[in-house]
Amino acid sequence: MNELARPPAASLTQEEAFARIRLLRSPNIGPVSYAMLLARFGTAVAALDALPDLGKRGGRQYRAAPADRIEREVDAVRRAGAKYLFHDQPDFPALLAEVDGAPPILTYRGDLSLASAPCVALVGARNASAAAVKLAREFGKGLAEAGFTVVSGLARGIDGAAHEGAFPRTIGVIASGIDIAYPPQHEALQERIASEGLLIAEQPPGTEPRGSHFPSRNRIIAGLASGTLVVEAAVKSGSLITARLAGEAGREVMAIPGSPLEARSHGCNHLIREGAVLVQSPEDVVELLTGFDGTPRSTFREPVSQFDFEPGEMAEAQPADIAALLTTAPVAIDELIRQSGESAAAVQLALLELEIAGRLERHAAGRVSLA
Amino acid sequence: MNELARPPAASLTQEEAFARIRLLRSPNIGPVSYAMLLARFGTAVAALDALPDLGKRGGRQYRAAPADRIEREVDAVRRAGAKYLFHDQPDFPALLAEVDGAPPILTYRGDLSLASAPCVALVGARNASAAAVKLAREFGKGLAEAGFTVVSGLARGIDGAAHEGAFPRTIGVIASGIDIAYPPQHEALQERIASEGLLIAEQPPGTEPRGSHFPSRNRIIAGLASGTLVVEAAVKSGSLITARLAGEAGREVMAIPGSPLEARSHGCNHLIREGAVLVQSPEDVVELLTGFDGTPRSTFREPVSQFDFEPGEMAEAQPADIAALLTTAPVAIDELIRQSGESAAAVQLALLELEIAGRLERHAAGRVSLA
Repeated sequence: MNELARPPAASLTQEEAFARIRLLRSPNIGPVSYAMLLARFGTAVAALDALPDLGKRGGRQYRAAPADRIEREVDAVRRAGAKYLFHDQPDFPALLAEVDGAPPILTYRGDLSLASAPCVALVGARNASAAAVKLAREFGKGLAEAGFTVVSGLARGIDGAAHEGAFPRTIGVIASGIDIAYPPQHEALQERIASEGLLIAEQPPGTEPRGSHFPSRNRIIAGLASGTLVVEAAVKSGSLITARLAGEAGREVMAIPGSPLEARSHGCNHLIREGAVLVQSPEDVVELLTGFDGTPRSTFREPVSQFDFEPGEMAEAQPADIAALLTTAPVAIDELIRQSGESAAAVQLALLELEIAGRLERHAAGRVSLA
Repeated sequence: MNELARPPAASLTQEEAFARIRLLRSPNIGPVSYAMLLARFGTAVAALDALPDLGKRGGRQYRAAPADRIEREVDAVRRAGAKYLFHDQPDFPALLAEVDGAPPILTYRGDLSLASAPCVALVGARNASAAAVKLAREFGKGLAEAGFTVVSGLARGIDGAAHEGAFPRTIGVIASGIDIAYPPQHEALQERIASEGLLIAEQPPGTEPRGSHFPSRNRIIAGLASGTLVVEAAVKSGSLITARLAGEAGREVMAIPGSPLEARSHGCNHLIREGAVLVQSPEDVVELLTGFDGTPRSTFREPVSQFDFEPGEMAEAQPADIAALLTTAPVAIDELIRQSGESAAAVQLALLELEIAGRLERHAAGRVSLA
């Protein structure tokens, strides 16, 4: 086993840190089942040992990711000059840790203390208007000067301008691995953020960004910040997903308004109409977020669509309540999915929860019953 | 006595109609004291008879306006092709009648049935941007096509464009007398509104518009409509007074957003930030106002500043609660004003209320006591 790139907290042995990475990278394990297994078995080492027995007789297969692949990952993280951060380490961003389905393991480069300062997320369209790009830069600058760390996603347009305005008080969260520059136009900006600010990645090194990674990346952006400001965005856009995630997490959702004659403003106007706080200046944001106590003034609560996430991707469904549907007579999992009206992922997660509690028995042909 | 230009309702004699006009035009009488006197004495004829005795021994002077001046007014209204409308006549707009301090007598030209349809007020800046003028015309057109009557103030910029878009379903409320065209650039528009739509004036004929008349005119605009939409306005503007009056009256307050980089949008953005509903299209307005039941979705409730009105002008203060300060020992009215912290107008109105209830005694040198 390689040494981990960053010495884990005193209570976290090298072996346990390695096991945690390996557990999270195992098939069919996401943040929710990871947390469930850690809670049930105490350590990732013990959870990995138990993994093959879970779901053994039919149902979902659980097997640990190959150890040599994890060794290569740890090595790649070190070569990228990056470090690991685990959810229960003191430096793990407190607000992010509160978010449902937040990634329990991150990789990062740069100044981690930036994530301990009050954070505000600035996001928006890639094809933003010149006026909005100017606003993003001004808001980035004004908020950094007011002591906030500006979080964004390193995309072209609004994201890039927000980072540039805020230097060096800025965090870039990327959808790729920590060692992959994306988009290509922002390679230099990403390197500058890593050296002067803070660069964060959830995916393992070597991961090229995929469409399905962006909602999970957006969850981290929204989760780090006490408020998310959408600078300019059309109605169907990733920025609105970030705003929904911020609202779902109980954070402030803010938007800069624009004329109805400008389609690129319609997303922001929609957010405001649905309860996001209208802001016109960095001072408006500072006033709103200073002393944020977990009770947002924003009333924006638009549900995050299931379709925003790919099943089995980093953002896992929450376990469904299906114990009531079970008896000691075996029943097909497909039947449980039909009867509960829940997604397959949510039902599988609920079965895993029952299984590690010793209440589930698995039978042939994908059938289950109460133990 | 001249005939009134319009035959009053069956229950309203020519003599009583004349007396009502005369009572309202009398010095120190505004809508609130007018209503108080009418309630106390049953008819304006009786109230006029009682007027000289009120406040006789010191305090405010109440004397009827000269009858010959009222005769000339009634004649001028007829020559302008206009008619009178009294607050208790069936055609008096129902929503306007509900507003505190609404004018109990109006003059009008045109199609009074337009005021019985659902009304929406469209207001905004005189020096509006070309884009906002275009929006005002489009909203006027779209709302008229949806069956709404569009109410505005005939000012240059937004008002004029709203009227033009809505023809013939539009009401112009002017701050001058019914026979005075203002602003001069809109003389033809005003004439067209009078002949195809509906033109309403609160001030007596011959009255040139004064700054102090505009807030009262704005109260009528807001009062006629179930909702007021501000299309474009700076922070300090008459349009925001109209919005405050609409909010105070429990009506919908709506605004079209704009970029923070455009100072002419800041008033609208401020309204939205404080609870006005953001609208982007005529359909948004139709959706909001259709079936308006008196419970607005807008939460905008910014107080109407006393400074928006000139003391003694058409918008009277509400009577203060000063009976508790009085005993049977005479006290100076100035002292009551000091002790109550109320405006002089509010205290005088409260004293009038006590006096017509027979509870007040007036003494020399402006002193009063309980009777």
